[in-house]
Amino acid sequence: MAPPTPRLVVPIDVKKSPWEQKLPIHNRWHPHIPPVAEVTEGEVFRVEMLDCVGGRVGDNNSAEDIKFVDASISHCLSGPLRVLDTKGVPAKPGDLLVVEICNLGPLLGNEWGFTATLDRDNGGGFLTDHFPCATKAIWYFEGIYAYSPNIPGVRFPGLTHPGVVGTAPSMELLQTWNEREKKLVETDIRSVKLSEVVHQRPVAHLPNTRNCLLGKVKEGTLEWEKIANEAARTIPGRENGGNCDIKNLSTGSKVYLPVFVEGANLSTGDMHFSQGDGEITFCGAIEMSGFLELKCEIIRGGMKEYLTPMGPTPLHVNPIFEIGPVEPRFSEWLVFEGISVDEEGRQHFLDATLAFKRAVLNAIDYLSKFGYSKEQVYILLSCCPCEGRISGIVDTPNALATLAIPTSIFDQDIRPKSGKVPAGPQVLKRLPDVLKSTYDGDLPITQNPSKDI
Amino acid sequence: MAPPTPRLVVPIDVKKSPWEQKLPIHNRWHPHIPPVAEVTEGEVFRVEMLDCVGGRVGDNNSAEDIKFVDASISHCLSGPLRVLDTKGVPAKPGDLLVVEICNLGPLLGNEWGFTATLDRDNGGGFLTDHFPCATKAIWYFEGIYAYSPNIPGVRFPGLTHPGVVGTAPSMELLQTWNEREKKLVETDIRSVKLSEVVHQRPVAHLPNTRNCLLGKVKEGTLEWEKIANEAARTIPGRENGGNCDIKNLSTGSKVYLPVFVEGANLSTGDMHFSQGDGEITFCGAIEMSGFLELKCEIIRGGMKEYLTPMGPTPLHVNPIFEIGPVEPRFSEWLVFEGISVDEEGRQHFLDATLAFKRAVLNAIDYLSKFGYSKEQVYILLSCCPCEGRISGIVDTPNALATLAIPTSIFDQDIRPKSGKVPAGPQVLKRLPDVLKSTYDGDLPITQNPSKDI
Amino acid sequence: MAPPTPRLVVPIDVKKSPWEQKLPIHNRWHPHIPPVAEVTEGEVFRVEMLDCVGGRVGDNNSAEDIKFVDASISHCLSGPLRVLDTKGVPAKPGDLLVVEICNLGPLLGNEWGFTATLDRDNGGGFLTDHFPCATKAIWYFEGIYAYSPNIPGVRFPGLTHPGVVGTAPSMELLQTWNEREKKLVETDIRSVKLSEVVHQRPVAHLPNTRNCLLGKVKEGTLEWEKIANEAARTIPGRENGGNCDIKNLSTGSKVYLPVFVEGANLSTGDMHFSQGDGEITFCGAIEMSGFLELKCEIIRGGMKEYLTPMGPTPLHVNPIFEIGPVEPRFSEWLVFEGISVDEEGRQHFLDATLAFKRAVLNAIDYLSKFGYSKEQVYILLSCCPCEGRISGIVDTPNALATLAIPTSIFDQDIRPKSGKVPAGPQVLKRLPDVLKSTYDGDLPITQNPSKDI
Amino acid sequence: MAPPTPRLVVPIDVKKSPWEQKLPIHNRWHPHIPPVAEVTEGEVFRVEMLDCVGGRVGDNNSAEDIKFVDASISHCLSGPLRVLDTKGVPAKPGDLLVVEICNLGPLLGNEWGFTATLDRDNGGGFLTDHFPCATKAIWYFEGIYAYSPNIPGVRFPGLTHPGVVGTAPSMELLQTWNEREKKLVETDIRSVKLSEVVHQRPVAHLPNTRNCLLGKVKEGTLEWEKIANEAARTIPGRENGGNCDIKNLSTGSKVYLPVFVEGANLSTGDMHFSQGDGEITFCGAIEMSGFLELKCEIIRGGMKEYLTPMGPTPLHVNPIFEIGPVEPRFSEWLVFEGISVDEEGRQHFLDATLAFKRAVLNAIDYLSKFGYSKEQVYILLSCCPCEGRISGIVDTPNALATLAIPTSIFDQDIRPKSGKVPAGPQVLKRLPDVLKSTYDGDLPITQNPSKDI
Repeated sequence: MAPPTPRLVVPIDVKKSPWEQKLPIHNRWHPHIPPVAEVTEGEVFRVEMLDCVGGRVGDNNSAEDIKFVDASISHCLSGPLRVLDTKGVPAKPGDLLVVEICNLGPLLGNEWGFTATLDRDNGGGFLTDHFPCATKAIWYFEGIYAYSPNIPGVRFPGLTHPGVVGTAPSMELLQTWNEREKKLVETDIRSVKLSEVVHQRPVAHLPNTRNCLLGKVKEGTLEWEKIANEAARTIPGRENGGNCDIKNLSTGSKVYLPVFVEGANLSTGDMHFSQGDGEITFCGAIEMSGFLELKCEIIRGGMKEYLTPMGPTPLHVNPIFEIGPVEPRFSEWLVFEGISVDEEGRQHFLDATLAFKRAVLNAIDYLSKFGYSKEQVYILLSCCPCEGRISGIVDTPNALATLAIPTSIFDQDIRPKSGKVPAGPQVLKRLPDVLKSTYDGDLPITQNPSKDI
Repeated sequence: MAPPTPRLVVPIDVKKSPWEQKLPIHNRWHPHIPPVAEVTEGEVFRVEMLDCVGGRVGDNNSAEDIKFVDASISHCLSGPLRVLDTKGVPAKPGDLLVVEICNLGPLLGNEWGFTATLDRDNGGGFLTDHFPCATKAIWYFEGIYAYSPNIPGVRFPGLTHPGVVGTAPSMELLQTWNEREKKLVETDIRSVKLSEVVHQRPVAHLPNTRNCLLGKVKEGTLEWEKIANEAARTIPGRENGGNCDIKNLSTGSKVYLPVFVEGANLSTGDMHFSQGDGEITFCGAIEMSGFLELKCEIIRGGMKEYLTPMGPTPLHVNPIFEIGPVEPRFSEWLVFEGISVDEEGRQHFLDATLAFKRAVLNAIDYLSKFGYSKEQVYILLSCCPCEGRISGIVDTPNALATLAIPTSIFDQDIRPKSGKVPAGPQVLKRLPDVLKSTYDGDLPITQNPSKDI
Repeated sequence: MAPPTPRLVVPIDVKKSPWEQKLPIHNRWHPHIPPVAEVTEGEVFRVEMLDCVGGRVGDNNSAEDIKFVDASISHCLSGPLRVLDTKGVPAKPGDLLVVEICNLGPLLGNEWGFTATLDRDNGGGFLTDHFPCATKAIWYFEGIYAYSPNIPGVRFPGLTHPGVVGTAPSMELLQTWNEREKKLVETDIRSVKLSEVVHQRPVAHLPNTRNCLLGKVKEGTLEWEKIANEAARTIPGRENGGNCDIKNLSTGSKVYLPVFVEGANLSTGDMHFSQGDGEITFCGAIEMSGFLELKCEIIRGGMKEYLTPMGPTPLHVNPIFEIGPVEPRFSEWLVFEGISVDEEGRQHFLDATLAFKRAVLNAIDYLSKFGYSKEQVYILLSCCPCEGRISGIVDTPNALATLAIPTSIFDQDIRPKSGKVPAGPQVLKRLPDVLKSTYDGDLPITQNPSKDI
Repeated sequence: MAPPTPRLVVPIDVKKSPWEQKLPIHNRWHPHIPPVAEVTEGEVFRVEMLDCVGGRVGDNNSAEDIKFVDASISHCLSGPLRVLDTKGVPAKPGDLLVVEICNLGPLLGNEWGFTATLDRDNGGGFLTDHFPCATKAIWYFEGIYAYSPNIPGVRFPGLTHPGVVGTAPSMELLQTWNEREKKLVETDIRSVKLSEVVHQRPVAHLPNTRNCLLGKVKEGTLEWEKIANEAARTIPGRENGGNCDIKNLSTGSKVYLPVFVEGANLSTGDMHFSQGDGEITFCGAIEMSGFLELKCEIIRGGMKEYLTPMGPTPLHVNPIFEIGPVEPRFSEWLVFEGISVDEEGRQHFLDATLAFKRAVLNAIDYLSKFGYSKEQVYILLSCCPCEGRISGIVDTPNALATLAIPTSIFDQDIRPKSGKVPAGPQVLKRLPDVLKSTYDGDLPITQNPSKDI
């Protein structure tokens, strides 16, 4: 007899706010956020999830909602789930939790998503010094495909994945996070040379009670207050996995997560219909609500056996994963290179972040010759299945990064043409554009000095 | 009637030194190094090349040759080739030179290569602070496959490619290079925060007459002296392409290079039988002598049309390329994550270089559980077809990089095993190891603080 | 604003019989079966479908239901759907109907399927002369993966697809079908040399009123009687597409169907979670109920423009299709060859059917060395994603066919091992087996003469 | 120290005739053809080969050479090679010979090939009843790519492979072949129903001394006479492998061949730069001279262990193989279907050969709308990397075969266009065509009855 259908352990109603869900959601990492449900090793179960900002960005014709979005709501996570073995014994610290993503997708009746750039004064993105305005594109799904009324001429199959899959940190690990991130925030920004590259973005997000959701912990209690002041924000990926935004963590993949607390306390969220490597615009995948069908295994003692700590404590580990077998297949790629020389022409030292920035800037300028606005391309490269590679990291002083774009997502041939002036620049601007807001701040905009040459 | 066989425009005799080749080789970039041959748009021609160090590292049982190798010989390039259109008119500055790699491989009778780490005081590599010694592995080729007596239990098909494909810079571009790299060298090293990551390596390689080869320019002349003092070293990839070390620039791919001087002056070299993204050990691909069969096209005015300058001058461009159709096919990958927290546990800001370093360190420790020495894995990850990705570059403060390793290159199953203690650690150490030298310097070695926990 | 969710145009309740569905189903091809719904060019709509036999085979521990299944119920199709353009004008004969499969899968709560061989006296299968018994395996789905309690040690991702996608034939085409198939049935079976290969199976299925379902046409009426006596059975694929059982007609693919009647009258059914090329056991995919999300376009006059009639009338065409981008990815294949020499050693002439039979027989015997029963392998090769190729069709007298099996679907290494006696034969028989019934008929069983040598 | 370069065990001089080669070639299968060289398990060795017809078809502007080619010269094989283990003990009957194809390609200086259809009275091809004339296309190679001056607008990477890889039969097996093929030849052709499909081609090629080459056996001797009268022609693939024409037997693949005589006596030949499944025009790949780099292993007793006899004797086996990792990668395919209804509209029974014929005919008519002659398409589909699949083999009475064509080999978009009349038919006929000869015979030509409708 058939095993029961994937058991729905966390239901979501997208018409309701994050505060009103049947099982309370959470948006911080803390060991004391109690599990909302239990799952057993071997069973396939279903988790539903709000989008990253809990529905605050709408399917509408304006970028105002994204301009003023309060990112402290991110990420609206489902869970934590307490994982037991078949005898009912919970996962223990030191175990390895294997999470197989058996299936995933948008929620029925909610087949749409958005890609946005945040306003530079509200979080910005990888190229915020070039593109300081909040912008937004809406995407509609036709089964495996997505298209946008804001970026005509492209359509592609999604490599759908959860941005966030993670286990709860122990108190010790949480303190480690808070301390090291606090230290970074306190550093004189001018001494952080890398911030030249991606400058004036918040360097870190320390614990903060605003919009804090702690699941079953009641707001207004002392406990809530304590946890809210300690709990780590979910923005960065860390030792527990979390917001890794790895586009290849898709259907059929298996992630091996460390267990830091009894029961593992697995949480998931931030579903992406599709994302490019880097997720460059920050709110940069095709963000959507969605579901996961998961299956867990516990490898007893496996954290020590397989994860390899590197740092002051045995907790300084990172998850590993296996890629699944059904990623979209592309054969032809146009690839842009970037080196670690900045927009002013200054030489930096083996800076892969900068090299990747240059590759992305090169791609944006190139594709804008084919009738797109630069904002359209910026958003497109953030959410389409492009690949960002560290190609060379030893040839001092230049790191070399590449950005590979599958050519078949376009309805025109975007390769350079031999023997004649390309049609590209002559193509009429495609009239629709991404939804734009104004940038009202006063941070300096990075210009391309050779722009008007 | 058949077109003639690919015309051999640059022959190489690997039994002779770089100085003794029939057509003189060169190892610097300078507009005044004269072409050694002409090729015409549309014809398929063959270029043979010495290995990167001109044969100074041998197929023997010692790492001493790599320990004391003088890297100022790198890279022994074939060319420059002057490219004409079918009417005999040379490529002009501002054109785009399309170079299709029709075929490539090792030289007949020379089917072997080596992968090495340089001594930390002699150039080092990406993890030189962890692995300061010079080491070496020899690889033998069986057609498309490579295996090493120094790293038993692995065999893989090569994604063969030239490390260096580039055009000659103009004087203006050359000056730009020399100035910006000089400025970096003159910077107080302690203020270059990134150098914490990959520290104590030479920050750049300024012009230097030692071992300088300038093709047809006669040593001892005033002209030689002048050029040798100005000519750029070939270590880093730059605007002209050059030593990009992009593993996907393999058979069937097409690279679009800017033309800065009349005739384009195309040079190639540094053949790699195989390389992983990043080429982490520096002399880190399977280095070999080899041949290329190339076909050129000239897109008149195409540099302006297609390459997008970003920087102070219109010369601040980067090549683009298309990936070829016959890369080795792998289905199953084990992936390691890394974030921008360093070995001491310090938090860095969106540093993709560091995140990648951590992913590599994680992979090395993991694979060493399966019977390999860490030096074997370091070299293996440098030259096997692994992929280095920038997965997340916006989730402050952590950049997230991944290193994906195809599992089928191993003769054992390297995935974590469910339900039982892995066989890995119990596997007998495979007796052979990479060839090792001593590190006689006194730079500090980075330790893993949790190593003995 | 988002377009509405895929509109559900045909709902199915799997707990009800084929006769009790809200929109009546049909299991014959006839131009006068009226549409049950209308769809418009460009909209994404959802069709739900019963399994091929309308639920008559259960998730239980016996093969008796398959032994006595009455195949005249096949295939329980949803539709016909009348297709209109955006102005409301229906598709016309001579148009080309483009059907894009945007999404598909099992029905929620019904994540299981079965693979069966029919009893030789009840329809048989490709190897029914070797395997005359009815057998059955149950498959359970874990998202994209299927596993069977009856065939341990295998698990694979599905290449899910509809076995049947077709348009209604015109009366002229229907008559063509009925006449040519009747002529075949009336042929002396001994003169049909090919039937040596696949002998004693029914040569064709002529119109037959038993279990006939005609949608909105009321049973008991004269009209019903007339149509039931004329309507073509759905077993074979024909000019209208129909039961083509093409495993690659999966998500993201696009099929170009001829239109023979006004409105096109599109019908779909016979969902397969997975199938191997050939679907050798006949009820041979992983048969399931399921859903399709489809999008139609009409190319006016496109049938003449693009489909190329070959035969007595312009109706003698075949559909064409494009393969979708998300098929499961396999890298390693073990391939079995077969030539057109039969089990008795007799030479046949360029008979690809026989050559494929031999390749399949070779694969079954081979895999049975690894602990499987031959019945398990027969069923497995029918439903797993294996590829059947016509490799050589000109080298008289032998056709050469190949069957390629992805090795990663097994939990053991099934490749021949070098240097030692294989572990295979020594592996304990895996205890579970497919569910088997007895064969009570008296047709001769084909033996392998060299079986006991 | 490096192992020596692949040892050249069989050199070929393409400027010389088959009779004049340094090591004598052979074109028949017989156990008494003596080895020309020995190879040892584990060593990589190089074999050079003439093309299939020993150079009798030239790179010229006429099809006359192919019209009158004497196919009794085929195939000019290199070998036999006697295979020893590392102790010098030869392979024994009952062993399994593992042959890994480490590398392959055209001979240096001979980078061209041809694809031909034979005259119907001289061997014909799969569609000889439609295309009775001898035709020819010349292909030139640019590294991995081939293009033809006779078929403009296509260029593709080769999936290069040997058409023939085989071991020598034992006397017992040879007799089995000769007897069964003789029996077929003696059959009344009208009773061979399948020959309707591919009619009037020679049903088999019995031993025949014309143009017989027997390697080291001296012509004119009694021994020569005896062997020449017994030796099997090499046209069909058989139990020993032989002319299997499997396009996927390319670089990196491994074939497991049965050993029937001491030393295995391995022979190879008939190199194909590229071939489509089926090799439909018969001399139908891109035929070329070339080389193989091979590595052998002997699995002692492995024939019994792994190959599964099916037939009167244990010799009735077929080889198996593993596909290599570097096949050209294509993502987009246009697929044509065919069913087992013939050109007259007659229904046949599960005839995969006929179904494939119909798929090919459909593809030819379709592609001829895009400016090609039908002869061009016939030749193109014979040699480009298209895939022929047996999709359905159980849905009586129709077998269903498919032919999948990679769209990227064309320089135009060959997919049906939505919403407008296709540009295809309006495209000017591409002026060059394949080289054609006249058909001077009087066999009936199959017409498409709906051709002029």
